[in-house]
Amino acid sequence: MDTSPRPQADQLPATAALRHLRPEIRAMRGYTPGEQVRDCIKLNTNECPWGPSPAVAAALRTISDESMRLYPNPLAQGLRTAAAARFDVQPSQVLVGNGSDDCLTILYRAFLGAGSRVACPWPTYGLYETLATLQGVELVQVDYLQRGGTWELPSILARQAARMVVIANPNNPSSTLVDVTSLRQLAYELDGILVVDEAYIDFAATDASMLPYLDRHPNLVVLRTFSKSYSLAGARLGLLFAHPEVVTQLEKVKDSYNVNAISQCLGEVALQDRDYHRSLVMRILAERAVLEQACRGFGWSFPPASANFVLCEVGERAGDLYRALKARRILVRWWDTPQLRTKLRISVGQPQWNAAFIAAVAELLPGLGA
Amino acid sequence: MDTSPRPQADQLPATAALRHLRPEIRAMRGYTPGEQVRDCIKLNTNECPWGPSPAVAAALRTISDESMRLYPNPLAQGLRTAAAARFDVQPSQVLVGNGSDDCLTILYRAFLGAGSRVACPWPTYGLYETLATLQGVELVQVDYLQRGGTWELPSILARQAARMVVIANPNNPSSTLVDVTSLRQLAYELDGILVVDEAYIDFAATDASMLPYLDRHPNLVVLRTFSKSYSLAGARLGLLFAHPEVVTQLEKVKDSYNVNAISQCLGEVALQDRDYHRSLVMRILAERAVLEQACRGFGWSFPPASANFVLCEVGERAGDLYRALKARRILVRWWDTPQLRTKLRISVGQPQWNAAFIAAVAELLPGLGA
Repeated sequence: MDTSPRPQADQLPATAALRHLRPEIRAMRGYTPGEQVRDCIKLNTNECPWGPSPAVAAALRTISDESMRLYPNPLAQGLRTAAAARFDVQPSQVLVGNGSDDCLTILYRAFLGAGSRVACPWPTYGLYETLATLQGVELVQVDYLQRGGTWELPSILARQAARMVVIANPNNPSSTLVDVTSLRQLAYELDGILVVDEAYIDFAATDASMLPYLDRHPNLVVLRTFSKSYSLAGARLGLLFAHPEVVTQLEKVKDSYNVNAISQCLGEVALQDRDYHRSLVMRILAERAVLEQACRGFGWSFPPASANFVLCEVGERAGDLYRALKARRILVRWWDTPQLRTKLRISVGQPQWNAAFIAAVAELLPGLGA
Repeated sequence: MDTSPRPQADQLPATAALRHLRPEIRAMRGYTPGEQVRDCIKLNTNECPWGPSPAVAAALRTISDESMRLYPNPLAQGLRTAAAARFDVQPSQVLVGNGSDDCLTILYRAFLGAGSRVACPWPTYGLYETLATLQGVELVQVDYLQRGGTWELPSILARQAARMVVIANPNNPSSTLVDVTSLRQLAYELDGILVVDEAYIDFAATDASMLPYLDRHPNLVVLRTFSKSYSLAGARLGLLFAHPEVVTQLEKVKDSYNVNAISQCLGEVALQDRDYHRSLVMRILAERAVLEQACRGFGWSFPPASANFVLCEVGERAGDLYRALKARRILVRWWDTPQLRTKLRISVGQPQWNAAFIAAVAELLPGLGA
């Protein structure tokens, strides 16, 4: 029997609890939610500018009380089967995640133990770094902007002694694309797992996806999301494609009921309305061309955009322009980092949003100096 | 430039990929989804036998295209504020999870690094063990059934040199309750984090919750779920309550957008319909009394049930009875483990489900021998 006296004071300092945190967690920067500004034109988070398929909204009205009352299907079998049919793979090659962020978390936890490394091009999607910190492993960042966007990246990445390489393709924020041949070469050369995050692939050239090569590379994992071309960022749905034996192992790592029943249903319907999906993508590509033309007109350079956004080299006044646009309730993305501070990332919006952005820049630029 | 030759054959064996898995993951047993049997009486997974509030179903019909198109609020501010009001805490003391499973994952990842231990009573919710394996840490299991259910457990748990102690209260599968005084003593004595998982607390005596003592114990974390008394297992919603500084640290560990926009909305409405919630709980408690009386009539012993299920000592024929009931399409829970093989766990169902279970047992028992 423990006879240690109970402390006199009820109120202990919070530090007593905080010192039990893993040191990696304490050292991390606090979470900064994305800018939530009301009643503004949002060209800052790469969401789809139009809503999801009307069939999705209709499906939402058919959700039963039973779907809410009971635990969801743990493997999202309906959506898994629909995804397999849509992307021409076997259901056993599909894992459904609570957003592709969830799929990434599962991959880091499954493959990266103490002392292992993960590598990726940099700058890229910030979560790749956050997850490395959480997992307590080293992230090797390969700078591709310094290299003028020349994509010798795959062979560099293959030589990092990394257990896992993660490539967003098209990449964010650069909107650039690595060709399939280079990625397949990397899959061959890499003594590790190659994760190709194809969140934006529907906006790239056809034949850019690695999915058709899934059967050829057991170390290949391909990710897709419903947050962009399917316009379901609010529903949190991602897909992971891999060798069936890899999927079986990853199922051990995911939360048993990681995807809610409602989103499972919506995702299935969204995949089936292929006409709507095609029309969404076509509208966004047409608007991207308009946006690129205007940016060229401003004298900005940028790599050919393969995603639903453009990363423009604006120069020293980029930060000022970002702030001036925000004051007019137009949000674009600007990062105050050495690599990105002269650039702006602009998401493709609806025609009137893009027009408002273009008009505002045309008005603001002369006042901002060279 | 790497000049290693490309392999001759396209098709590599899957083992090439699998050897990159963390050894803990490879050694884990494969995931076994819960029994999904159609058209049966489900008294096996402790879901709520009635559906959610009609206000929840109504809210589902108001979800806009914009809610689906845009990323959800990362901290679920609406639901967080509603939960704070409902449970009489500050919003800064609340973290919303994708089910309380997600909250547990966040806690394990935040507090348990290499070499640390987590302790819990055993048998209990199996996820506590799975998460320890995933995190690569030792789980100390304190057997309480051997001790005849006497709850000297808290003082035993305090002496395990564990960085975190997790107690389901009421416990699953035993349906037993640890009193608040003992838990507070444990919180004082423990040099670590005390997690009290109150998934079933609404079915226990009033004043059983640790929530009123949150301000007194900075090392206390309380979990709640919407899967039981709110009948929203399909929506995946859990709540974590802790000291504001602890919540801030845990926010770094969670997925940025861990809870989808639709479930956030449904949870907020569910919390507000307090009359419906109260009536659901009352109906379940009334049915639990009927079930307990019948089980006593069968000569089964069980600890007083504090949750929406009863764990009965059935004897050697427990497994046979489980199988015979299943053949009649009535599912209860039976585990083929040394600790539990003579017991059955029966969830409280709707009156006609419970009646069917009672009638079937009355018919089957004589044929199964002593």
